[in-house]
Amino acid sequence: MSKGILIVVSAPAGCGKDTILEQALSRNDNLFYSVSATSRAIRPNETDGVSYHFKTREQFEDMIKNGELLEYTEYCGNYYGTPKKAVEDMLSAGKDVILKIEVEGAGNVKKMFPDCTMIFILPPSFGELDRRLHKRGTEDEETIKRRIATAREELTYARNYDYLIVNGALEKAVDDFLSVVDAEKMKTAVCGSLIDTLLSE
Amino acid sequence: MSKGILIVVSAPAGCGKDTILEQALSRNDNLFYSVSATSRAIRPNETDGVSYHFKTREQFEDMIKNGELLEYTEYCGNYYGTPKKAVEDMLSAGKDVILKIEVEGAGNVKKMFPDCTMIFILPPSFGELDRRLHKRGTEDEETIKRRIATAREELTYARNYDYLIVNGALEKAVDDFLSVVDAEKMKTAVCGSLIDTLLSE
Repeated sequence: MSKGILIVVSAPAGCGKDTILEQALSRNDNLFYSVSATSRAIRPNETDGVSYHFKTREQFEDMIKNGELLEYTEYCGNYYGTPKKAVEDMLSAGKDVILKIEVEGAGNVKKMFPDCTMIFILPPSFGELDRRLHKRGTEDEETIKRRIATAREELTYARNYDYLIVNGALEKAVDDFLSVVDAEKMKTAVCGSLIDTLLSE
Repeated sequence: MSKGILIVVSAPAGCGKDTILEQALSRNDNLFYSVSATSRAIRPNETDGVSYHFKTREQFEDMIKNGELLEYTEYCGNYYGTPKKAVEDMLSAGKDVILKIEVEGAGNVKKMFPDCTMIFILPPSFGELDRRLHKRGTEDEETIKRRIATAREELTYARNYDYLIVNGALEKAVDDFLSVVDAEKMKTAVCGSLIDTLLSE
């Protein structure tokens, strides 16, 4: 069996990355979502082990010390990181692993896995992003303004990614995401052993 | 409008490339098929300007002299080549242009257009290829044997291509082809100007 590919996905808040990934995962059985670890408090709508692996600061710092994280970062006073073992196990089992990760963490993963596929999800416009964040109704005006400003900053990292997907219409964005995954699996660098198999016939 | 991408497709005879391309073209309006020129005689089932632009040897040699060809090759005593103008016009008009071309010509196009997307279509197995060539019933036993031998030779070039598509089931191969085209259009190197457009908002 050939190894799976590692897919890094980043997007500013409000760009719909969670919904895109949820739908993509439900349509492609070979995709595996890597659940991040965090030291931040669990929120009412979240489930431990699904949204995040929730850890105390001490537990998280132990994970760092023991080299159990692929990458981690501290953001707004909380740790966020990617548990290494699950990712490596899934890749070895031939699964294609999705890491949802912010732009700096993504850069660190790229350094460790130069062959990973980096996807950045864009809003159709900042006007639309503003509208979506207001519609969501979970943040106050001040927070939305800050999120838009952060989105602009994050966008300057988008050039470092391999692919850009615009989330204008959700269904199209999910199709686009799955097309990129399929295409990456057809890259000669990934499936080139097919040639040897055929020629050995 | 952004420029289209150039897609080079190669496949041994009997791998179904014509059917794949026909169906892909019918499903994606932005694809343009570049009709090759040849000095070989037209066959009963062929149409001038659709199958090929049929030329006399003298006409073909004039095209070479006048620099009207992107690439050309001589094969079994006949010339085959890619008219330059149609390709350049379509790319400028934002169309994604497909060149169906044998492995050596493909290598020459890659030198001229390093950014082109190279796709190689594989048979599921040589056994299946043999079965398909027999089923087609257009070639005698000797020709089929030679075609299989040629296919094995061509396959050694497949490593130089960006993508490998196995034509096991036709519908799946067409989907795969269109996924590769879609993914290529999402590459940051191709659509990166989206970032500037968003940031200029």
